[in-house]
Amino acid sequence: MFWELAGVPAVAVRRGTRVESVHHVAACVASADGTIVEKIGTIETPVFLRSSAKPFIAAAAVRAGVLEAFGFGDRELAVMCASHNGEPGHTEVVAAMLERIGARVDDLRCGVQTPAYEPAAAALAARGEAPTQLNHNCSGKHAGILAFAKLLGAPFEGYLEPSHPAQREILALCERVSDDTFDGDKLAVDGCGIPVYATTLRNAAMSFARFASLEHLDDDDAAALARVAAAMANEPWYVAGTGRFDTDLMRATHGRVVGKAGAEAVHCDALLDAGLGVALKVLDGTRRAAPPATIALLDRLRALEPDARAALEPHVRVAVRNVAGRVVGDVAALDGWLPQEIALDV
Amino acid sequence: MFWELAGVPAVAVRRGTRVESVHHVAACVASADGTIVEKIGTIETPVFLRSSAKPFIAAAAVRAGVLEAFGFGDRELAVMCASHNGEPGHTEVVAAMLERIGARVDDLRCGVQTPAYEPAAAALAARGEAPTQLNHNCSGKHAGILAFAKLLGAPFEGYLEPSHPAQREILALCERVSDDTFDGDKLAVDGCGIPVYATTLRNAAMSFARFASLEHLDDDDAAALARVAAAMANEPWYVAGTGRFDTDLMRATHGRVVGKAGAEAVHCDALLDAGLGVALKVLDGTRRAAPPATIALLDRLRALEPDARAALEPHVRVAVRNVAGRVVGDVAALDGWLPQEIALDV
Repeated sequence: MFWELAGVPAVAVRRGTRVESVHHVAACVASADGTIVEKIGTIETPVFLRSSAKPFIAAAAVRAGVLEAFGFGDRELAVMCASHNGEPGHTEVVAAMLERIGARVDDLRCGVQTPAYEPAAAALAARGEAPTQLNHNCSGKHAGILAFAKLLGAPFEGYLEPSHPAQREILALCERVSDDTFDGDKLAVDGCGIPVYATTLRNAAMSFARFASLEHLDDDDAAALARVAAAMANEPWYVAGTGRFDTDLMRATHGRVVGKAGAEAVHCDALLDAGLGVALKVLDGTRRAAPPATIALLDRLRALEPDARAALEPHVRVAVRNVAGRVVGDVAALDGWLPQEIALDV
Repeated sequence: MFWELAGVPAVAVRRGTRVESVHHVAACVASADGTIVEKIGTIETPVFLRSSAKPFIAAAAVRAGVLEAFGFGDRELAVMCASHNGEPGHTEVVAAMLERIGARVDDLRCGVQTPAYEPAAAALAARGEAPTQLNHNCSGKHAGILAFAKLLGAPFEGYLEPSHPAQREILALCERVSDDTFDGDKLAVDGCGIPVYATTLRNAAMSFARFASLEHLDDDDAAALARVAAAMANEPWYVAGTGRFDTDLMRATHGRVVGKAGAEAVHCDALLDAGLGVALKVLDGTRRAAPPATIALLDRLRALEPDARAALEPHVRVAVRNVAGRVVGDVAALDGWLPQEIALDV
């Protein structure tokens, strides 16, 4: 029922030089046919993918033709896959999408969220403006689903229900890429109101391997996922934003690693060169541990060129600062939690 | 070096009915002479007590006479022990303390923090006001240390340094109550800039047993800690604030359990009736797991009367809501992580 724990903690939070808190991580690396390349901890427990599923959600809309129907390009598609910072660049794209769809901000059902990017939140406050639904990190995904609904001739109302025609298409694609069925307690509600599904880390890694390799997919899913990967690689800032790990990862690897974080510290990555997928879960759900653990795993998989690895340094050992800005500790992966060798010849 | 993990997770976070994330907890229950009543997980690894040490920090100032020198009563003393919400009632008391001390808000070195209580933050923003250092959850502690500095004839400047006369007195009291020495990597810097110390959960539990029983203390420390406990019990809102677990715990138990949370998910409690101390650490540092785990442990210790237990229900199974306010999951302690019987006859 629960995850067993790997033998050693994966990530340590230090204050001064002493470990203050520790995080355990489970992870799987798989190929598109479901072969397990590596497993760390329990990988057969279903995990809610949360926002890590956004590329598949977007792909369902792409497959149906929303890009052509509404003239959306890479930026719009990237923001459909985003857990964005709510920065002005993000909200402007979403607002323009709504206009093309013929929808109003009020048609969104994600709720209002303060921009995740602190300077954007401060700028709003300084102008005496309240955040809106556009600032919600999922607003692009929601706008994409409204577009999908419009294309299908379905009402905006009820677009969060699993029975809505758009959600039915979305969940069907997610089931196809993950070889899984989402019913019972494997289907729940995300923070933004959308249906979320749980699948094992093995199946999640396989899904991302299919996203990377475009193998074991029907032609339409493959074509849609290829466009999603290209959009995320071409416009990584729109997938997350300033200072964010996913943006920096896709920039540093020139889109050879397409990564997507999910709430409760899920991280999934498509390794385009190797055609592999990675799915990782910090068992306690703490976001801070996911980037250092992901980089350690990508390092071991030799998925990062030296220049990419160097560019990601701020996410390898994350400074912990006190309110005055002084560095008082750090968050970093620990030696020993990963297997010494990971076989890449699958 | 690191904590070993207890055999089973202590707290589960569910989405729908499925477990999404899990938290492991280490804990110790001890008496004032250091006898271990119960241990869960590793209790010999030093843990930074963070804000759980505030009652001892305040006691050092009380022992020196700050209450008499500045005419401080229970509210001022409670806010000196507080990780408060930054609500108007909290900031007003701290502002008045600074006036009596002859200090300015600018003399504080805690830094500016948005009020932890969302409606207080929203009210500030609606008035177009920026948060100040008074809103920082530690502002009362910092004001208390400024008062202590003034009383000692020491400068405000440098009051955060371990070598400052006030900090030397504070750390000396903390060493006495915990039978420990804070040097090397057991001394670090807290989020608000103040020195923080690490001691084992065993010694932390013993410290809180001394706080509860006033035994194994010199007369002056005992007298000071008695006043601290009374102030926290009499004015629990000033120790945390609206909706907060510590406030609700002290209210529900009529001050028979004096509890104090610390950052990175430490929770320590003085059980006045039993003369015992509890020290608990969620190993991954996630705050959400500390209240349900604390209540489960207090339950097992028979430290909660039925009416207190009923009043604490919102902290037993904490609802997880999506942005729209719909309950989509919960956070609750799991059966099986606590020993079946805890001996109270020590």
